[in-house]
Amino acid sequence: MTVDYPPLSLAEKVATDIGRQILAGALKPGDKLPSLREYARLNGYSKNTVIAAFDLLSERALVEPHHGKGFYVREMAGLGERDTDEDPPAYNQAIDTIWLMRQQAVREPGRAHLGEGFPPVEWLMDMRVDRFHRHIVRSGVANLFRYGNRYGHLPLRQHLVRRLAGYGIEVGPRQVVTTFGANHALDIIIRCHVRPGDTVLVEEPGYHPLYGKLRLQGANLVAVPRRADGPDLAVLESILQRNKVRLFFMQSVAHNPTGTDISADVAQRLAKLAAAHDLLVVDNDAMADFKANATPRVSAMAQLKNVIYVGSFSKSVSASLRVGFIAGDKAHVEELADIKLLLHLGGSEYAERVLEAMLRGGNFLRHVKRLQDRARAATTRGLEVLHGMGATVFAEPAQSLYLWARFANITDTHQLTTRLLSRGVVLAPGALFQLDPERVSPWTRLNVAYLNEPVFVDSLNQELDRAAGTASPLARPGLFTPPEWGR
Amino acid sequence: MTVDYPPLSLAEKVATDIGRQILAGALKPGDKLPSLREYARLNGYSKNTVIAAFDLLSERALVEPHHGKGFYVREMAGLGERDTDEDPPAYNQAIDTIWLMRQQAVREPGRAHLGEGFPPVEWLMDMRVDRFHRHIVRSGVANLFRYGNRYGHLPLRQHLVRRLAGYGIEVGPRQVVTTFGANHALDIIIRCHVRPGDTVLVEEPGYHPLYGKLRLQGANLVAVPRRADGPDLAVLESILQRNKVRLFFMQSVAHNPTGTDISADVAQRLAKLAAAHDLLVVDNDAMADFKANATPRVSAMAQLKNVIYVGSFSKSVSASLRVGFIAGDKAHVEELADIKLLLHLGGSEYAERVLEAMLRGGNFLRHVKRLQDRARAATTRGLEVLHGMGATVFAEPAQSLYLWARFANITDTHQLTTRLLSRGVVLAPGALFQLDPERVSPWTRLNVAYLNEPVFVDSLNQELDRAAGTASPLARPGLFTPPEWGR
Repeated sequence: MTVDYPPLSLAEKVATDIGRQILAGALKPGDKLPSLREYARLNGYSKNTVIAAFDLLSERALVEPHHGKGFYVREMAGLGERDTDEDPPAYNQAIDTIWLMRQQAVREPGRAHLGEGFPPVEWLMDMRVDRFHRHIVRSGVANLFRYGNRYGHLPLRQHLVRRLAGYGIEVGPRQVVTTFGANHALDIIIRCHVRPGDTVLVEEPGYHPLYGKLRLQGANLVAVPRRADGPDLAVLESILQRNKVRLFFMQSVAHNPTGTDISADVAQRLAKLAAAHDLLVVDNDAMADFKANATPRVSAMAQLKNVIYVGSFSKSVSASLRVGFIAGDKAHVEELADIKLLLHLGGSEYAERVLEAMLRGGNFLRHVKRLQDRARAATTRGLEVLHGMGATVFAEPAQSLYLWARFANITDTHQLTTRLLSRGVVLAPGALFQLDPERVSPWTRLNVAYLNEPVFVDSLNQELDRAAGTASPLARPGLFTPPEWGR
Repeated sequence: MTVDYPPLSLAEKVATDIGRQILAGALKPGDKLPSLREYARLNGYSKNTVIAAFDLLSERALVEPHHGKGFYVREMAGLGERDTDEDPPAYNQAIDTIWLMRQQAVREPGRAHLGEGFPPVEWLMDMRVDRFHRHIVRSGVANLFRYGNRYGHLPLRQHLVRRLAGYGIEVGPRQVVTTFGANHALDIIIRCHVRPGDTVLVEEPGYHPLYGKLRLQGANLVAVPRRADGPDLAVLESILQRNKVRLFFMQSVAHNPTGTDISADVAQRLAKLAAAHDLLVVDNDAMADFKANATPRVSAMAQLKNVIYVGSFSKSVSASLRVGFIAGDKAHVEELADIKLLLHLGGSEYAERVLEAMLRGGNFLRHVKRLQDRARAATTRGLEVLHGMGATVFAEPAQSLYLWARFANITDTHQLTTRLLSRGVVLAPGALFQLDPERVSPWTRLNVAYLNEPVFVDSLNQELDRAAGTASPLARPGLFTPPEWGR
């Protein structure tokens, strides 16, 4: 397969390949890498390419040179101590929200994480999370012991103000409150604005941990279909005309699971609808760093009038820092800061300072550019793989972390997921992203970074052959479902 | 006043005095300290004492020697950048839970934080939060980018298992789940076990942010009076006989606000009552590091049968890391880990690794010993100050962070708090720790670390003189309340 990697040099590709083997456990701490000469000869690369690749791996703290002996895998590389007390994954467990969330956390060498919502760690490792420590105590060491400001660490909020300005959203530092990630942000908004029994609108397909949080709070969820250019405004308007609804959760950019962006036209009309019906729109922008700043957003269109913005660094810097944020008008943000104070006393000033130190340098801008280059190359390659399999793709973004696809003769991706899991391929079945997970769905969310994993391509091709063999006119949904496809 | 400081050497006292001036802003970054000779002469200390004190301050990163020029206050010392956008505190605002929580966060030089729930930063600074960074990436650097295990970082949980064993509580690592602090732990328990309209028992006086969280969830709160030896079991039993109640939140050790510990006898009887009535007791042990390991706990007495344990490091290591934990039986903890996963995807592996690195060394044991010595000295001194003012103290613990006290002729500490606030003294009025904050209370929670601040002693003595002058037999509560005492 010819893949266009404009920004990823060959050395980077070699480094990523070796890095992946280390992270997957195929190369273990203490292992010696092949010699430069040997590696170059075996793989047909120039020696300079391999030198550059090994240097990149050293920079990412995965290998280290032992003087005169070659390169070795570092002790601290890889996935670290295994939680031996962790239950083995049961392959035939019920596929529900929490189960999938748990599966995502299980990392085993050889498993292909097609269903994963997270970018590969190698895409993040040039922002060394562990490198910035000496910068976090430049001032105010005493604050490292106390509860932080309820709005969050001020220098970080000042950075976020500039970030939002880059999206065309004008706010002051008191219109920003930090959280323990985007999920915590959504939870605080829910705690503040949703009472048990309230009707709340969500996109469908949509972000399933949001559904779970809203249900935990006792909300009645009503679906607004997601289209390739944003939420279906005809449906939204007809709901708003018939019901008093206060809240709508959506994603303008790089929607999860479809990978689509809202169009400027839909964003503008949604902003108007929200104003006309006094609807509060929550725009979850967790994937912002994967897209150009100029991508349309309802939050920019509405200038946060009737819109609350949710931001995150989990998928572009580190999910282990747990820092996200909310932006909105002053009254909303003050209320949310009070709820945060009541529930948690404060955020982690420690983690917020580490993040602020990371964002401060020009390195972060270079990292985001590289992340987008990687996502673009992987999206291009992923679409080629899917087209090769005859898949139908919901929408074809230029760059995204996810593609939303269905395959010929596959009517139930829950069934497909269960079958592929036993071969080490973890899918995210479409039913998960629906309000009714019992409804059969032919769709699946695919992480572009893993789409050309041989184990996925091979297993899925076998399943497609099998489905083509068993598929008869009778097997079409609505006519007759053979018992083996049942739940 | 003669104060017995058995474990705090004179050098340490000098270092603490100077450190406090730096943290309060009286000595500013870049300021030169007086010369050793000058400081020794002015204060009547030996030169060796002052050398040792300056060394301690260097160790705490507050000052640094400039070769041949003496010691200077470090740039990073003090309280750091001020949030200039922060509202000025309004002295006559309603005193409610969130308001007090906000006041606690406002640090101004010259204010005396008698009402503060937090130990002085100087008590924590020998555990340099910023020193442990190189230790946190010993292994598994890739995990620093991903969502953590839903139970928390395994080496930290293994440490917590040993910590609990020290209290006589036997658990395995799957009986422990980490949280973003004790307040987050309480919130997760509430989200898991409390439905709107449920009746929930709490101690009164008790931990007010807990009341706020339970009310946000829609719970009906019923008070169990707190005695000097624990909750009033006669009241508890009579409530349990008449009602089906599932949940009781309490504190065995160093109860907030009274500073009291449960007796072994009451702990044993409470464990039996819980088993007999299928009552789930939540034992908030956030102050554990301030007391001897052998202090009785209902959680140890019941071996976590019908008891969930909540732990924290906010008041003994750092509140800015935001790491706490829950321990309980496997079924409870698994359910809580799932709720945590649903709400937040995971904890901060980053902060958990930093904490684990700090706890790993022997330095932490020395730190806890010193913290307890400081609390003991401050409690002794605080009781002397209160006795000197003729105060009534609810109970007189050997060591605690809080004393619960009332003063002659003061019937309403809400009124007293408002009056003292304008002089820079921040009290925590008793009404705050009641279910009905409108009920007048003569009690106040005093942080022992600040009890001998001259501004507090002077202002309060003036208020006591004033109250004695206006107090007539008619002014006693229950007889007649003059309008000026009304709300």
